Amino acid sequence: MLSAHPALVNALAAVKEAAARANGDLGLLPPARRDAIVTACRRIRAGELHEQFCVDVVQGGAGTSSNMNANEVIANAALEALGTGFGRYDIVHPIDDVNGSQSTNDVYPTAIRLAVVTGLSGLVDELATLADAFDERGAAHRTVRKIGRTQLQDAVPMTVGDELGAFAVAIREDVARLGEAVPLLLECSLGGTAIGTGVTAPAGYREAVLAHLREITGLPVVPAHHLFEASWDAGGFLHASGALRRTAVKLSKICNDLRLLASGPQAGFGELRLPPRQAGSSIMPGKVNPVIPEVVNQIAFAVMGADLTVAVAAEGGQLQLNAFEPIIAHSLLQALAWLTNGVRVLRELCVEGITADERILADRVAVSVGTVTALVPTIGYEAAAAAAHRALRTGTPIADAVAAVSGMTRAEAAELLVG
Amino acid sequence: MLSAHPALVNALAAVKEAAARANGDLGLLPPARRDAIVTACRRIRAGELHEQFCVDVVQGGAGTSSNMNANEVIANAALEALGTGFGRYDIVHPIDDVNGSQSTNDVYPTAIRLAVVTGLSGLVDELATLADAFDERGAAHRTVRKIGRTQLQDAVPMTVGDELGAFAVAIREDVARLGEAVPLLLECSLGGTAIGTGVTAPAGYREAVLAHLREITGLPVVPAHHLFEASWDAGGFLHASGALRRTAVKLSKICNDLRLLASGPQAGFGELRLPPRQAGSSIMPGKVNPVIPEVVNQIAFAVMGADLTVAVAAEGGQLQLNAFEPIIAHSLLQALAWLTNGVRVLRELCVEGITADERILADRVAVSVGTVTALVPTIGYEAAAAAAHRALRTGTPIADAVAAVSGMTRAEAAELLVG
Amino acid sequence: MLSAHPALVNALAAVKEAAARANGDLGLLPPARRDAIVTACRRIRAGELHEQFCVDVVQGGAGTSSNMNANEVIANAALEALGTGFGRYDIVHPIDDVNGSQSTNDVYPTAIRLAVVTGLSGLVDELATLADAFDERGAAHRTVRKIGRTQLQDAVPMTVGDELGAFAVAIREDVARLGEAVPLLLECSLGGTAIGTGVTAPAGYREAVLAHLREITGLPVVPAHHLFEASWDAGGFLHASGALRRTAVKLSKICNDLRLLASGPQAGFGELRLPPRQAGSSIMPGKVNPVIPEVVNQIAFAVMGADLTVAVAAEGGQLQLNAFEPIIAHSLLQALAWLTNGVRVLRELCVEGITADERILADRVAVSVGTVTALVPTIGYEAAAAAAHRALRTGTPIADAVAAVSGMTRAEAAELLVG
Amino acid sequence: MLSAHPALVNALAAVKEAAARANGDLGLLPPARRDAIVTACRRIRAGELHEQFCVDVVQGGAGTSSNMNANEVIANAALEALGTGFGRYDIVHPIDDVNGSQSTNDVYPTAIRLAVVTGLSGLVDELATLADAFDERGAAHRTVRKIGRTQLQDAVPMTVGDELGAFAVAIREDVARLGEAVPLLLECSLGGTAIGTGVTAPAGYREAVLAHLREITGLPVVPAHHLFEASWDAGGFLHASGALRRTAVKLSKICNDLRLLASGPQAGFGELRLPPRQAGSSIMPGKVNPVIPEVVNQIAFAVMGADLTVAVAAEGGQLQLNAFEPIIAHSLLQALAWLTNGVRVLRELCVEGITADERILADRVAVSVGTVTALVPTIGYEAAAAAAHRALRTGTPIADAVAAVSGMTRAEAAELLVG
Repeated sequence: MLSAHPALVNALAAVKEAAARANGDLGLLPPARRDAIVTACRRIRAGELHEQFCVDVVQGGAGTSSNMNANEVIANAALEALGTGFGRYDIVHPIDDVNGSQSTNDVYPTAIRLAVVTGLSGLVDELATLADAFDERGAAHRTVRKIGRTQLQDAVPMTVGDELGAFAVAIREDVARLGEAVPLLLECSLGGTAIGTGVTAPAGYREAVLAHLREITGLPVVPAHHLFEASWDAGGFLHASGALRRTAVKLSKICNDLRLLASGPQAGFGELRLPPRQAGSSIMPGKVNPVIPEVVNQIAFAVMGADLTVAVAAEGGQLQLNAFEPIIAHSLLQALAWLTNGVRVLRELCVEGITADERILADRVAVSVGTVTALVPTIGYEAAAAAAHRALRTGTPIADAVAAVSGMTRAEAAELLVG
Repeated sequence: MLSAHPALVNALAAVKEAAARANGDLGLLPPARRDAIVTACRRIRAGELHEQFCVDVVQGGAGTSSNMNANEVIANAALEALGTGFGRYDIVHPIDDVNGSQSTNDVYPTAIRLAVVTGLSGLVDELATLADAFDERGAAHRTVRKIGRTQLQDAVPMTVGDELGAFAVAIREDVARLGEAVPLLLECSLGGTAIGTGVTAPAGYREAVLAHLREITGLPVVPAHHLFEASWDAGGFLHASGALRRTAVKLSKICNDLRLLASGPQAGFGELRLPPRQAGSSIMPGKVNPVIPEVVNQIAFAVMGADLTVAVAAEGGQLQLNAFEPIIAHSLLQALAWLTNGVRVLRELCVEGITADERILADRVAVSVGTVTALVPTIGYEAAAAAAHRALRTGTPIADAVAAVSGMTRAEAAELLVG
Repeated sequence: MLSAHPALVNALAAVKEAAARANGDLGLLPPARRDAIVTACRRIRAGELHEQFCVDVVQGGAGTSSNMNANEVIANAALEALGTGFGRYDIVHPIDDVNGSQSTNDVYPTAIRLAVVTGLSGLVDELATLADAFDERGAAHRTVRKIGRTQLQDAVPMTVGDELGAFAVAIREDVARLGEAVPLLLECSLGGTAIGTGVTAPAGYREAVLAHLREITGLPVVPAHHLFEASWDAGGFLHASGALRRTAVKLSKICNDLRLLASGPQAGFGELRLPPRQAGSSIMPGKVNPVIPEVVNQIAFAVMGADLTVAVAAEGGQLQLNAFEPIIAHSLLQALAWLTNGVRVLRELCVEGITADERILADRVAVSVGTVTALVPTIGYEAAAAAAHRALRTGTPIADAVAAVSGMTRAEAAELLVG
Repeated sequence: MLSAHPALVNALAAVKEAAARANGDLGLLPPARRDAIVTACRRIRAGELHEQFCVDVVQGGAGTSSNMNANEVIANAALEALGTGFGRYDIVHPIDDVNGSQSTNDVYPTAIRLAVVTGLSGLVDELATLADAFDERGAAHRTVRKIGRTQLQDAVPMTVGDELGAFAVAIREDVARLGEAVPLLLECSLGGTAIGTGVTAPAGYREAVLAHLREITGLPVVPAHHLFEASWDAGGFLHASGALRRTAVKLSKICNDLRLLASGPQAGFGELRLPPRQAGSSIMPGKVNPVIPEVVNQIAFAVMGADLTVAVAAEGGQLQLNAFEPIIAHSLLQALAWLTNGVRVLRELCVEGITADERILADRVAVSVGTVTALVPTIGYEAAAAAAHRALRTGTPIADAVAAVSGMTRAEAAELLVG
């Protein structure tokens, strides 16, 4: 049901209120009727009447059902405000009054845009807080040395702080990208009506409705600069979907790393400890699983799928309209809801409690041959490689191996290795 | 919530009943406790207690939460059957009794498999009925000639019956493919427990539990032939997902065609008339839109997305388990539900009422230069092309154009053109 | 072979030249050796020696083979410049000299970034020219009226100029989005070496190498602001891939429209005429197919696929490196090459020659009941709907139908209908 | 260029030879001309003349360019066989003779089908050999115990043989699935010509051409059972693509496991040793990377992308033809080539040389608390969990911890733990 996406219901109400006020300004709607419609819209935006938005989320008609649903709920709530009986459409008409100067084709995509902007705002807040949590954990492990890895093979030393701090940086970059999607979504086609010609919308309506919409939503909505293009273009949605996918892919990579670094406890990497969250197994006593990162991985996979749905739906638009906006709306709004929730859970139930096993980390740095890389500028790649192979093959401490191949003393070698 | 997928809840109950009966056979569960557990499972499969399956559908732990949810609901319902108080786990224990000889890792994927098989069965029934409907409409238009098109350009004549009948054939092929997915899903890993070693499952359990499961579900469940592989392999799910995607792609193509053939009414193809289903527009009076095929297109796009989710989740499995089965289950079961509903709606509200505009079709066949193709074997490609160009350029009837370029009489040409 | 992507080979040479110059500045490379290396790099960037870049494009090792291939080609070309024999690595060493202060892990992704930026620049130029072509064709048809369509059903009148102009607008929006991808790609990790610690790179190297790289490429390359994150993050590539996908989706939608509007010639929309490009059929004489838009559709599908490859590869990165950069590079560079070529061909062989069939368009506007929408503000939705239905059902001219239901005279109705 | 896919060029020649022989049988082609055409086709299938197949692989016109390219190459080679000059189309005509009774729309998809079947055959052979290699390595490690893992956390003991053997089983399942794709591809539409009506193909042609094609190719080609459906249906291609994707996903999972199990050498899992294949790094001496599995991962990602391309192209087909077969062909044939090569390389350069680090494995089994799971049937889940926690927390050997919580003696506990 449409009510599963409250931000979309609220956005429809915001658009309808803006339209009623604009029609009032232009003398197309008498003050009493306008005020009744405005009252109805505000009740919806306050969270009332949502259960009456009962059409299927996925519907044909490019949103006509959703728009008509809104028109009728609002007409009847306006009649209620006027103290008149339900269904007296001779007094407030769902189409002639509530839908005045509008078409599904400019109302519905505008409402989706506003709903997605609202959703993005919530996601961005959670992501920023998650980045802070990684930064805090990074700072707490700023000096804890560990072996970095490339291609899953031991490479050179770094710190746990470097690793966790990188997650924070990556997430903040996604915040920036998600923010860039917003201005594209705030270009709206209200006033274009059916296909962009503006048929049935009177002169002055377009400017008026956007002014009211800005005031109602507090969002800097701007007019689309080519109404015919805006009527069919799903580019803004696809851009937003791509940004969500990017965020999902990044979160998934981070969760993959967390799960890997926490693998064990005895036969794995065992570097990080994630807070235990539930008995991990119905059969293996004592097992604790990384269930929170696993949830986020799965949300990420669902977002990648939803993104494909959006792309295929965008490609399928024909001529003056994209008839597949309902599935685009559903896909984006569900992706936003899942991601926002997943990011919050990841922070609260996992990241904020991450600790490192400093003993394991220190032991590994002590024996790692990866430290030999620091000697390449001094003794050359081939001598350094010989030392590394010797240490691995024989179990000789790396400083001794370096001394053996390079002519340095053990002490000189040791000093250079610390870097 | 897990209860959003009733087939999965029922399947969990079926597995638990089979396990309890097997444990009873092997003397691991006293008859009274076994019977109480069986009673509990049957209530669930009769549709009771579903609201207690309240864990999130998407969850970490590879389904541990779902399995534990089932264990606890069943333990308490068994206690109720024994007339004992809620939570008296000393009498019926969720793990030691309800989960006996099992692991989430063999129970949960088995339940998903059964649920998907159930869903496929419903979809296949609806598809078969849809194919019948296309056949019926095809038969009703068996002799109605029309111009076939390749690359959207007029090609050669065919009949409306040929076109609609092809849809039936295509759908029946998908029915066959979906059916092939079932045996793969009926290979189940029960008895393998955590990773396929069968640890905690006694000798004889595996054979017993499958025998009971066959009896309970009426499905020819067979043992997976390599329990270690079965423990992590998501190949059966991916295969089923691919078959669903194929069905979705085909249905989308068919709906694209229906919408195109019904385009107009004045400035489009105008060949088919789809039953009108709602006022098509909040602004354009008299407009009737192909809302039903549009819904099916959108469902198809959602299924393509869900399929990607399944593929990425399948790829992400690691070592002895795929921890991402919850999102695989959700994606498949939602795709099945949407597709099944969409196919039913498509048939009932659209296909069964399709008619053709025979006047338009006949007019177009009469003037089409595509009929000239039938002359290629007689007069050669180049002469036939010359006739076609002449007819298009000058508006000459095609028989006259053929006569002019070929030396045939007009009557001879006309006869050959009818083919 | 790597040489299939000349922009990548050139970018590797640019990075190597910058590194040699920086190493020279820091006294790590004697002037003669540095100059020989610079000479070698410049030959490559001038198009020479590309055939020696013969490793597979898709390779393991996160690009190590490509980097080593470059190191060896350049070392030998430097030896040639010094008049020394091939393979005299005691004089110019591929690793110690050509790869000095570098790691594959900072060199290879930087080279990919530069190559993608180069490719984007070429694509953007072609897209801008395509947009101009649509604008020119739109201007040439500014006053040609036609029936717009929503959901493939006749809607309200517009002009061919509106329709073609919208394509230009849509394409320019993609140009803007593609441009936004560039700054992200110009953040490069040179100086971070293996994992971002900068091990083996001396103080001052990072600033120096970027300064030289800016001078060599003319591109405003900037340092990545967190080298550990930059070492593994594939976000910039994923963003670019998403922008390419968006462009592809939009082009595909436009080509779908062109093919549909040109469908016929007798039994289709028949509104646009695309320049004929080849005998359309080996069997149907006279048939002309929209082969150019079909090519672009297919390129778009390939780009959507390549984009999925990039997303999955980005998700698969682990710990301090994304080992799957080679397939990311290949996917992006191939998508760029195909799209750039497709856009050029679309403009030259199709769009620039588009004309409209003004007679068909005028005839349809004359009879369309979609014009009744313009009366909704005056006579209300229900009266307008009644008029439309009457006209469609009886064949009455729409003005007469309006007069019959509204009380207007025929003349008044006709005037309002023209809008 | 089309010649990049030799199997497709050969398949086109096989179809043309079959058609010429059928036309000869039916008296439509005099013996001398027929024989000349047959000679030309056989030269192509012997590997000659491929360089003349020079049209772009991705092309509009649903393959018309490819078909015409074949017609012209064959006509000229037939003229050469007749000792006549190049281009003497009055003697052998590319369309009237070489393309007789055919249309691009039945020839081109048939050729793609044959080429894909050929490619599948090669892939299946390589996969079977790879499975054998895993089995051989599994057998060599049949008794080497290790800790199995679920959700990357230590679970219960198994053997290296179990793990490697599971890979063999998984691959053989894919072999079975790939085999199932073949019969669908062998249903071909030859004789349907343009849209399935068979216009221009004489009576008897269809049976004759298929009989010859069976003889020429040795493949059990069968007629499609509904020619109109066969004319547009891309279901067989989509099914094959889905099977390839499944194989790719499975191979990627296996390669992920290999890379993970071989991670280290000091700070990773370190269980398996993959044969070293190249100096792993241009900067880190001694580093050896899992480059071969990485290549296969990347090929898998490319195949997933190609599969999406096929799905979107299949969805985009309209009315009586899928105009996007060229990109379908390219995607499938490239996926086949890459996968086949990747599977061979994986076996030769990696799997056949896999060994286990038995010391590490044994050490881990010795200390693992996962062995406690075997006690659940005896002492109950809660006591077993208590023992596991005690062992992990205190470092007590697991048998002692079990004794402490269960009342068993240490010796009894130890015996049960071995299982």
